[in-house]
Amino acid sequence: MLFQVEMDVRLPPDMAPQVADELKRVERERAQQMQHEGKWRHLWRVAGRYANVSIFDVESADELHALLTSLPLFPYMAMTVTALCRHPSSIRDDDR
Amino acid sequence: MLFQVEMDVRLPPDMAPQVADELKRVERERAQQMQHEGKWRHLWRVAGRYANVSIFDVESADELHALLTSLPLFPYMAMTVTALCRHPSSIRDDDR
Amino acid sequence: MLFQVEMDVRLPPDMAPQVADELKRVERERAQQMQHEGKWRHLWRVAGRYANVSIFDVESADELHALLTSLPLFPYMAMTVTALCRHPSSIRDDDR
Amino acid sequence: MLFQVEMDVRLPPDMAPQVADELKRVERERAQQMQHEGKWRHLWRVAGRYANVSIFDVESADELHALLTSLPLFPYMAMTVTALCRHPSSIRDDDR
Amino acid sequence: MLFQVEMDVRLPPDMAPQVADELKRVERERAQQMQHEGKWRHLWRVAGRYANVSIFDVESADELHALLTSLPLFPYMAMTVTALCRHPSSIRDDDR
Amino acid sequence: MLFQVEMDVRLPPDMAPQVADELKRVERERAQQMQHEGKWRHLWRVAGRYANVSIFDVESADELHALLTSLPLFPYMAMTVTALCRHPSSIRDDDR
Amino acid sequence: MLFQVEMDVRLPPDMAPQVADELKRVERERAQQMQHEGKWRHLWRVAGRYANVSIFDVESADELHALLTSLPLFPYMAMTVTALCRHPSSIRDDDR
Amino acid sequence: MLFQVEMDVRLPPDMAPQVADELKRVERERAQQMQHEGKWRHLWRVAGRYANVSIFDVESADELHALLTSLPLFPYMAMTVTALCRHPSSIRDDDR
Amino acid sequence: MLFQVEMDVRLPPDMAPQVADELKRVERERAQQMQHEGKWRHLWRVAGRYANVSIFDVESADELHALLTSLPLFPYMAMTVTALCRHPSSIRDDDR
Amino acid sequence: MLFQVEMDVRLPPDMAPQVADELKRVERERAQQMQHEGKWRHLWRVAGRYANVSIFDVESADELHALLTSLPLFPYMAMTVTALCRHPSSIRDDDR
Repeated sequence: MLFQVEMDVRLPPDMAPQVADELKRVERERAQQMQHEGKWRHLWRVAGRYANVSIFDVESADELHALLTSLPLFPYMAMTVTALCRHPSSIRDDDR
Repeated sequence: MLFQVEMDVRLPPDMAPQVADELKRVERERAQQMQHEGKWRHLWRVAGRYANVSIFDVESADELHALLTSLPLFPYMAMTVTALCRHPSSIRDDDR
Repeated sequence: MLFQVEMDVRLPPDMAPQVADELKRVERERAQQMQHEGKWRHLWRVAGRYANVSIFDVESADELHALLTSLPLFPYMAMTVTALCRHPSSIRDDDR
Repeated sequence: MLFQVEMDVRLPPDMAPQVADELKRVERERAQQMQHEGKWRHLWRVAGRYANVSIFDVESADELHALLTSLPLFPYMAMTVTALCRHPSSIRDDDR
Repeated sequence: MLFQVEMDVRLPPDMAPQVADELKRVERERAQQMQHEGKWRHLWRVAGRYANVSIFDVESADELHALLTSLPLFPYMAMTVTALCRHPSSIRDDDR
Repeated sequence: MLFQVEMDVRLPPDMAPQVADELKRVERERAQQMQHEGKWRHLWRVAGRYANVSIFDVESADELHALLTSLPLFPYMAMTVTALCRHPSSIRDDDR
Repeated sequence: MLFQVEMDVRLPPDMAPQVADELKRVERERAQQMQHEGKWRHLWRVAGRYANVSIFDVESADELHALLTSLPLFPYMAMTVTALCRHPSSIRDDDR
Repeated sequence: MLFQVEMDVRLPPDMAPQVADELKRVERERAQQMQHEGKWRHLWRVAGRYANVSIFDVESADELHALLTSLPLFPYMAMTVTALCRHPSSIRDDDR
Repeated sequence: MLFQVEMDVRLPPDMAPQVADELKRVERERAQQMQHEGKWRHLWRVAGRYANVSIFDVESADELHALLTSLPLFPYMAMTVTALCRHPSSIRDDDR
Repeated sequence: MLFQVEMDVRLPPDMAPQVADELKRVERERAQQMQHEGKWRHLWRVAGRYANVSIFDVESADELHALLTSLPLFPYMAMTVTALCRHPSSIRDDDR
């Protein structure tokens, strides 16, 4: 099933740059791993904000929660989760 | 370029059923036409609401505006438009 | 999977009483049918408001959407849907 | 009587991990104790957030307040409390 | 137990004056009846708004709901209900 | 004249416990003094929050402000002040 | 004592022009009467909105409420009332 | 002096098309007249909404108010007015 | 021209008392200087909050901005600025 | 294409003055560079706030994002981005 997840990242301004960079590196690794596994289906940057709009493709809300909380940046993120369904007017087969 | 558009539809409860049905029919037609043209890239239903989350793929904001205002349901919709960019961690080539 | 759904009902004050009563009757019937089918697991009234807090137990967000939109009062309701997971500290087996 | 309580936990990101872990451990213990006592009837995790939706079954608002403020994580939580009543359409006997 | 209830009244501006007056008359009657019964403990007018702040003294949330929904103006009111407890610093015996 | 005052207390989580306890002690003393003087007419705890709903009985807004800002916890509180009037349907003589 | 009152006027767009004009005429009369009586101390128009910011000088909140609800446009207005005190840094004697 | 004005237009969905078209025609005329007079300096459409972002160049807030309230669509618009100043980092001479 | 400015002061609770007192002293001096110069026309305290409602009388928004940002407490204040016009029903000559 | 960007700057009050001054200096340099390049078309100060309203003229949302995130003050700014289109009533040729 699909979920839309909006993630707003707020790193403390006084965080040491190298700590922040390392966090972003492992975050990127984790995010790409999930994309390769087909869980993190779409990942877009919101123009002008340190935020993204994402579409997750998971078996359950439990799996979604496990994935999101495993993100290194999770403690610094405000997330909005919206459950999606197939739209009756959608022509894309795989958009479930 | 990509835009996320969230559309909340609010038809007046006292609208005659056949008027509403006809509106939905032509809306569906218009939406599928735009999808076939590659403009309306993703269309998902929000669970529990007469609303959708969509991703548009257009040349400009002007084109986006023309498409959205051409929708039969436009006068009955509240829209939130978010400009998207390619995310540095995205592995999908065509997610621009 | 479980969803929390909060439903705020707003009937137009000038709706004819018998129309409103009939709507409520068939709504009640539909709601009890879903409870008997095990889909609508909990249904509580919010004190002081024509609103409820409910827990749905469904296979997918699509099924949830189909159930909610089939409610006679759906056109008059504002709904908030929250996807739930099993809580690691929960001791109830069937709270998924 | 039943109350819905939504708890949003916000631990300071710079809290030492072992301090946070110990807090969570005693929180978990306290929560399970209340569940065993029948006070904390339902406890669900909100997908994507360090938050929960809970249903408490208490004698009074005073008892609810005493329980909630006794939680080790209370100083780090934003709570929304909603008083619930039995819904006229509910078919569950014990949902009061 | 005590509840604070804030009631915002919004009568449709085009409601016939005599209908509105009659509604207010029976509302006043009902409100004073509940005060005499000791259920509606305090009733204050909010300066500058057709709204009130009230304190109800009831056995349960169910009783509160029954009282509030029995008010003639209920369909025209937006209500905010807050469950109250005795405050540890209160010196009034009967403020429960 | 009467004012409703809602006070939300937010002590910094990292405040030393003994400092917090001392603050609460003198706050309690001050609050009870004002109640004995008839200024702080009602003080209720909001269930589930470190907050209260209060009714003040003062000569003027100036007096209200002097009382509120004299509270030891004032720097840590968010306050909402609502001016109240006698309600035409109130049967209590002393509810002004 | 002084109150700041912000009034947002929303006349139904389909109100007959002459009805609206007559309402505005008597509103203007009433407002100027109150100003002459010294009750309505300041009245400014908010640029770009059918709204005003006003300062009232009254004996009590009750008097304020009586004045405001006597305004012909009251049923069409959303009001925000803020109780004011003398500011310790104010140099104006009559700003109470 | 410059003001930013954001205008959200909400025409009643049941307004007769020809009435709406005529309103838009005279609105367009009025808007272009103000632009030719140098008062309405910039006028942009917000993508996806029947709304605009505008910059007005006027002598005073009074003049701004007179211009805005003279717009045929004014009764159907929600406006947000923001007073602007010259920015110390601006390199444009005429951006005041 | 006149502006309403609402100022909410939030000093960090852990600011050293003498630093806070000195800030308030010079703020008071600056505020009284502006009042004597006729720029800061009205200054009222909001009952129950470390906030004020003020009316400024300036030549332009630029002058307003220069005055406000010169206030010692400016970095600790949240400000809401509303441009005012003369109200057609105002009887005060000097209320512009 | 044009974007409206509103930037609210919030520097930590306890930031060392020279650090803040240096940040502002390089920010000013960067902002003027972008204006000279024609990317940052308009930059106005919001009266009374450490905030600005800007109009950017870029090839894409990606370019906008790159420009905004390259601003030295970016980590301390809350940004609102609105995609703009040419308005059918605009008479300015270059307002796209």
